[in-house]
Amino acid sequence: MPTVTLRDVAARAGVSIKTVSNVVHNVGGKVSPQTADRVRQAIEELGYRPNLSARRLRSGHSRVIALALPDLRNPYFADVAAATITAARDRGYNVFIEQTGGSAEAELDAIEGMSDPMIEGVIIAPLLLDQRQLAGRDLPLPLVLLGQREPGFACDQVSVDNMEASRQVTAHLIGRGYRRIAIIGRQDDVPDVTAVQRIDGYRRALKEAGIEADASLAPVLRQTPYSRAAGAQCMASLLELLQPPDAVYCLADVLAFGALSALHAAGLRVPEDMGLAGFDGLEEARYRVPTLTTVAPDLEQMAQAAVDALIERIQSDENIGPRDITCDFDLILGHSSEASRG
Amino acid sequence: MPTVTLRDVAARAGVSIKTVSNVVHNVGGKVSPQTADRVRQAIEELGYRPNLSARRLRSGHSRVIALALPDLRNPYFADVAAATITAARDRGYNVFIEQTGGSAEAELDAIEGMSDPMIEGVIIAPLLLDQRQLAGRDLPLPLVLLGQREPGFACDQVSVDNMEASRQVTAHLIGRGYRRIAIIGRQDDVPDVTAVQRIDGYRRALKEAGIEADASLAPVLRQTPYSRAAGAQCMASLLELLQPPDAVYCLADVLAFGALSALHAAGLRVPEDMGLAGFDGLEEARYRVPTLTTVAPDLEQMAQAAVDALIERIQSDENIGPRDITCDFDLILGHSSEASRG
Repeated sequence: MPTVTLRDVAARAGVSIKTVSNVVHNVGGKVSPQTADRVRQAIEELGYRPNLSARRLRSGHSRVIALALPDLRNPYFADVAAATITAARDRGYNVFIEQTGGSAEAELDAIEGMSDPMIEGVIIAPLLLDQRQLAGRDLPLPLVLLGQREPGFACDQVSVDNMEASRQVTAHLIGRGYRRIAIIGRQDDVPDVTAVQRIDGYRRALKEAGIEADASLAPVLRQTPYSRAAGAQCMASLLELLQPPDAVYCLADVLAFGALSALHAAGLRVPEDMGLAGFDGLEEARYRVPTLTTVAPDLEQMAQAAVDALIERIQSDENIGPRDITCDFDLILGHSSEASRG
Repeated sequence: MPTVTLRDVAARAGVSIKTVSNVVHNVGGKVSPQTADRVRQAIEELGYRPNLSARRLRSGHSRVIALALPDLRNPYFADVAAATITAARDRGYNVFIEQTGGSAEAELDAIEGMSDPMIEGVIIAPLLLDQRQLAGRDLPLPLVLLGQREPGFACDQVSVDNMEASRQVTAHLIGRGYRRIAIIGRQDDVPDVTAVQRIDGYRRALKEAGIEADASLAPVLRQTPYSRAAGAQCMASLLELLQPPDAVYCLADVLAFGALSALHAAGLRVPEDMGLAGFDGLEEARYRVPTLTTVAPDLEQMAQAAVDALIERIQSDENIGPRDITCDFDLILGHSSEASRG
């Protein structure tokens, strides 16, 4: 059943949308009593929203979901939020954004919908959440995870095939002739299943090419969460190695943007002296000099799938088992990985 | 009166927050009836939130505000949203984000709180809104404008001194020896008061230095809204002039990022062949090569002021006249304007 809109009410009452809005919001000054009555009659006939709050309460449906993510200032999460808000709006839902700021406790709070009793379900892009804690437990609200799920965690997972995407971008660097390929983004204390998958894909590509993995090329990130500053710092430490890398694959584009800045500060050219690749497909990657090779998940597809899965859980009376939804990605080739060093 | 939190209830009942959450969300499986009773008693004693929705309805206070902005994928607006959500949360309010997508109609809808009857007030960063249409009219909801206000538009304005900031960055370029300074960001059909102020500041700095403004250096942006693509396109057109500029001031950092990319494509060096400056103080400006000179508004201060002003309007029984709140900015010097050409 399509939602009745203010436009429908305006058309029925033969008045402007503005007038309907004034009546709805009880800003009566500019509306004649006769017109207001006509609007109220149209609202009644169409069963429209001045009573929506009350109807929502009675039915228990606020049509509000939460999107929990570390920080909107990170452009990847801003893109995720943009796509999720659009997909939710298309289904008649509004979104509260919970910025968890790299706090595991804030991520748990978000999963439990703690910020507002209106929240009917949660989509989370976790960073520090230890999913093993939640394995086998009932969740208080319908939950969809953007990223990879631990076995036993009773939510839906919406993700690209992180291992395969990571394998492809690493194999691309190898194909271009790079041999000592470092990886930036490994975090020691963080139980980030998605990152683990990406690191596995990197190792698999090395193995397929017969290149031995060098632990010194997979340093632990000292700063959390992913940021330009963390990428720059980690790149600088890689340049201090006795045997520095000839290419670097970053698990997030923002890390690669920071690495690019650090390489320039060190007087090194990309791609001639060092190859570089990222992950996320951010717009900035296409406008950097050189443009950045990156894996671009289909964020619109992911957002749509996450919203659809969550609403299905919200509206279903049955217990839906955990589902894994795999979305598309593209490997976007930039100039940052162009050097042929065969 | 401080808000009672789930933590308070958990402490009073002597149970975990998780248990309280399960009771609140009626996920009863894991909670014994005795424990659930204890939790409900604590909720009752503290007057806590399971009944919040009902209380809100009775009091007419949903504690939900809307933030309307063109597109979260634009990093300036993502930063604005991050700061606004944080400031609102500190005051116990949640935020719906309305992406108006560069549509004047969507901006009007947002001002009227059309997406949800729960919305108690609106903060808007407008793009295409013709404020003159709204001058002298009653607004259906409390409204705060991020940016400059038309006289007669009955909302609060929270903004930096755009004219002065723009004058300073232009004077800085002149001080570095640049003389033919172009401006990117002028839009012909768009009644953008903020942009008009910034262009005025640019012209004032030229006048103070005795430099005659050259209309060919202030081309009209063919693409709307501000984007990297628009900046690149406009920069390319400036390079086709018989007398191209020796520096470019962009009214938004994303325009400058696009311009930088176009300059590189044309084989020109920044700052040696062309000086460059932006506006917004985005993090990307500090990680570009060269780093970008830019005006950084104090977004935390702006968000706080906007949220405070809006909540005051929401909670006040009196008619508050329009207020102008001016926030701080910094001129951040990057390498993009470093060439001394005196």
